[in-house]
Amino acid sequence: MKRKAVLFDLDGVLYQGEQAVPGAAGAVAWFQERKIPHLFLTNTTSRPRSALVEKLAAMGIQVSEDDLFTPPVAARQWLEQHRCHRIALFVPGATRKEFEGLDLAGDGEQSAGAVVLGDLGEAWDFATLNRAFRLLMAGRETPLVALGLTRYWKAEEGLRLDVGPFVKALEYATGKEAVVLGKPASPFFQAALERLGARADEALMVGDDIRGDVEAAQRAGLRAVLVRTGKFRPADLELGVEPDAVLDSVAELPRWWQERAGVSVG
Amino acid sequence: MKRKAVLFDLDGVLYQGEQAVPGAAGAVAWFQERKIPHLFLTNTTSRPRSALVEKLAAMGIQVSEDDLFTPPVAARQWLEQHRCHRIALFVPGATRKEFEGLDLAGDGEQSAGAVVLGDLGEAWDFATLNRAFRLLMAGRETPLVALGLTRYWKAEEGLRLDVGPFVKALEYATGKEAVVLGKPASPFFQAALERLGARADEALMVGDDIRGDVEAAQRAGLRAVLVRTGKFRPADLELGVEPDAVLDSVAELPRWWQERAGVSVG
Repeated sequence: MKRKAVLFDLDGVLYQGEQAVPGAAGAVAWFQERKIPHLFLTNTTSRPRSALVEKLAAMGIQVSEDDLFTPPVAARQWLEQHRCHRIALFVPGATRKEFEGLDLAGDGEQSAGAVVLGDLGEAWDFATLNRAFRLLMAGRETPLVALGLTRYWKAEEGLRLDVGPFVKALEYATGKEAVVLGKPASPFFQAALERLGARADEALMVGDDIRGDVEAAQRAGLRAVLVRTGKFRPADLELGVEPDAVLDSVAELPRWWQERAGVSVG
Repeated sequence: MKRKAVLFDLDGVLYQGEQAVPGAAGAVAWFQERKIPHLFLTNTTSRPRSALVEKLAAMGIQVSEDDLFTPPVAARQWLEQHRCHRIALFVPGATRKEFEGLDLAGDGEQSAGAVVLGDLGEAWDFATLNRAFRLLMAGRETPLVALGLTRYWKAEEGLRLDVGPFVKALEYATGKEAVVLGKPASPFFQAALERLGARADEALMVGDDIRGDVEAAQRAGLRAVLVRTGKFRPADLELGVEPDAVLDSVAELPRWWQERAGVSVG
């Protein structure tokens, strides 16, 4: 196997909070210079991709928006592949622009070709959730497309429900299973591989989350490297998940990759 | 076994819509005259028990509110048994009075001894659901008590989400499993039996719903009779559920019961 591809997690791998992981910029540049196909995977949808590009640039990591693979990007790709029309969006304003140019359903429509659910936050109310429910019930084949399944997040004033609970509410109400485009769901990894034109067994995921990155990628058929940065804790290695390698940080990835160059992984 | 008890489903067994099932009044009177312990089980929480008492009276069936066993009644019993304090109610106004006299939590409290979820309907919004979520997260042992798991109901203007989807949202967000007090959950049947002081194997459920009444009661350890009224369809008998008897209607129940009198059921 010559062709290989890499999927990088962002938070905890390239940076921790606002701090770059030492050597991360060099590691990314190494893959860029060799034109090894890669994408940066993140579940973050709270800020636009342009903001992530700026954040990385400030750390000396030069990437374009197209290198960032987020749930909305994956969802758009999925909707296009499945030729969905009259798509009903239940996503925050900032996320709407990722779907510009698609055939979107108007607010008053009684049916839809797909229902896309994101982290609406304060904008959720009964009428809104019930509208998504009715659209899903109106079309037997209308898919529920979820921008991840995150349970909650920690805001300054306390915990806040994310998109996952609302997806579960609609799955239960409708009896449908959502297409989840976000880690740790396999369709998200598959969508990233399609974008790169790589097969799962040719690709490597690099992450700090033993469950959401490593286990999830392996379940989707990828190899996965765990880094000892970000949310990594030594106890993570006792959970029954076996990373294909454990590195001190992403800075070690080029050397690890090189030692395996030309060697069929596996 | 001498002592036996009967649980009657209401809708589809004693009446269909506004029409009494022929012979239902006589059948109920037969059990009342013999002082055979019994309760009427219904998931209906949209109207107060007093309205159900009136509806039955208009059909010649004389029952008291205490004979009606609903999710709020079961929940109150469960909360009392588990000595719950500072109970946070997320239930509609009409249902609140079923919990009068319990130690209820105020709106601004940061923790609660239990969180009770009902069909809030239009009153659901993000802030309300998030408040229930935070209370459940604030107390590791704080139980989520659900007034049933109904998915949706058919209002005049269309389908409407019921309590179930919101329970599922909070179960997923918190990782807790709800205590469900409503058909078809076993704790609801158990609570009814406790009220009657009967063991499961001494009790009979009578219903028109092969899944929600018959299968559910059998799973809780009761015997169950299916009646060919209400939502009964002949195809129900091909679903792999074996009722202990199938009767044309509740009117046949006294004769069926008498034929078995003194005979140990089973």
